[in-house]
Amino acid sequence: MTPVPVRHRFVRYRAAPGGPAKIGLVDEEETRVAEILGYTNLFDLIEKHPNLCGDHKFSTWDVTELQAVEVLAPLPGRDILCIGKNYKAHAAEFHKSGFDSSDKNEQPDFPVFFTKRATSIVATNTPIYTHPDVTQSPDYEGELGIVLGKAGLGVPREKAWEHVWGAVIVNDVTARERQRDHKQFFIGKSLDTFCPMGPYLVPSSSLSFPDLHLTTRVNGEVRQSQNTSELIFDVPTLIATASLGISIQPGDVIATGTPVGVGMGMAPPVWLKDGDVVEISIPPLGTLRNPVTSARPSVCSLAEC
Amino acid sequence: MTPVPVRHRFVRYRAAPGGPAKIGLVDEEETRVAEILGYTNLFDLIEKHPNLCGDHKFSTWDVTELQAVEVLAPLPGRDILCIGKNYKAHAAEFHKSGFDSSDKNEQPDFPVFFTKRATSIVATNTPIYTHPDVTQSPDYEGELGIVLGKAGLGVPREKAWEHVWGAVIVNDVTARERQRDHKQFFIGKSLDTFCPMGPYLVPSSSLSFPDLHLTTRVNGEVRQSQNTSELIFDVPTLIATASLGISIQPGDVIATGTPVGVGMGMAPPVWLKDGDVVEISIPPLGTLRNPVTSARPSVCSLAEC
Repeated sequence: MTPVPVRHRFVRYRAAPGGPAKIGLVDEEETRVAEILGYTNLFDLIEKHPNLCGDHKFSTWDVTELQAVEVLAPLPGRDILCIGKNYKAHAAEFHKSGFDSSDKNEQPDFPVFFTKRATSIVATNTPIYTHPDVTQSPDYEGELGIVLGKAGLGVPREKAWEHVWGAVIVNDVTARERQRDHKQFFIGKSLDTFCPMGPYLVPSSSLSFPDLHLTTRVNGEVRQSQNTSELIFDVPTLIATASLGISIQPGDVIATGTPVGVGMGMAPPVWLKDGDVVEISIPPLGTLRNPVTSARPSVCSLAEC
Repeated sequence: MTPVPVRHRFVRYRAAPGGPAKIGLVDEEETRVAEILGYTNLFDLIEKHPNLCGDHKFSTWDVTELQAVEVLAPLPGRDILCIGKNYKAHAAEFHKSGFDSSDKNEQPDFPVFFTKRATSIVATNTPIYTHPDVTQSPDYEGELGIVLGKAGLGVPREKAWEHVWGAVIVNDVTARERQRDHKQFFIGKSLDTFCPMGPYLVPSSSLSFPDLHLTTRVNGEVRQSQNTSELIFDVPTLIATASLGISIQPGDVIATGTPVGVGMGMAPPVWLKDGDVVEISIPPLGTLRNPVTSARPSVCSLAEC
């Protein structure tokens, strides 16, 4: 694995409470953010730079301490695509758990696509609300999210990487008994705050695809640790499948599935609870860190868009 | 069933090719459309009038012959929610068909929610493309689509009707072997042109909920004919379920499921083919009429947004 210099690490943020959302570049040490002029959201930036070269220079100004700003979810407002059962050992733990009512087989023959509602998306540091009135089995799923650049329809596997703009970390938080009871996964996957995303978007030119290592920690304890090159259905296959008759769009996110090590797979299962902290790291995408709370946030904070 | 006078039948349309999208009111005879001033899309209108009274008067001008305008999909750009297996006889035909790989039971114990991608939405009169390279089993599903008005979270059944703004017809076109193979329904439901929606939005004040009759005709032959009061999970249950921990938003559409009589249920199955015309009627929501083509439309017409 050859380290790739990180030239572009984009962040969506608010410099002051209640102020406008801005787009910025974060430095190598993750200590400062420089505002990029001319963009108010990252969908626009992706559309204008579908294949961002490592040497492209953006006009920046107004450098701020990263700790002083509020980092926002990078791509809010659009339902995200997700893949189920896409690492062998995780497919086995899910199959064994009794929570997979959707398939009698352990390994899928075709990629299992479902969606999470846009209203579930939250930023790093935003609490994951456990919804104690709705579920007794909230669980984390650390995932590599592929961010699509160029629009496409019927993209062949061999051209799929041309449509990958970059990547972002996603936590596909899941209410297990609702995933099981409703058969289709959407309901159990879409609770408000159940889609932490971020902290940064990093373009392909700064990534060593598909050789990225994902680590999930709960309260500092490593729960998931796997290389994303071990996907059952690799990124080109996912893009070819997602675009077969279906138009893909700049800024679409495909969360590629979670490795073994979710709470459901422990004996007995261990669910997320008040006071936990979930941290998912994929260098150089940063660390997506979310505390867990059983105290209901104000309604306006639930749909962070 | 007492007829309710239709005071408001909203249409999104284009008066001239390439011109701007407008919002209008269609008269009782469906011959003329009057432009409503002050709105460019129906999401805005719904948000500003979450409980539209029958006697509300909009400012209109510029009356045009309805036949002279291009009717557009009323609520484009947002993935829509759908319900599977929500009429008893249809659940039985689906179970028997061999295409339901997602559930070993005929009748669901909980509402089966999934989504269709926003890029699949098209207007009345727009051809449904059969995607011959992708599927050999394209099928229609005539459905009552509930349009949500007031935002909500954890809406109890007894208050659910307060969140219903009105209704629209949806054709939940499906690639049956892809629905079966991918286990989760999203992929088989989201092909471009597979979500005809319209022609009109009608608010609750002009509807006799839940007593509406749905009829689907293919080439003039009646294939589906059922009252929407016969849903397994009724509209209040669907809204209570959809909003349990999940923020619902003005303009969200829930396609409530299809009655018995889809092509999959015939012996042998009869799939949509080039030259067919599918018409779904729910008085007073109008008739959603779409021809079927196996000739690939230009890319830009596939994602009609």
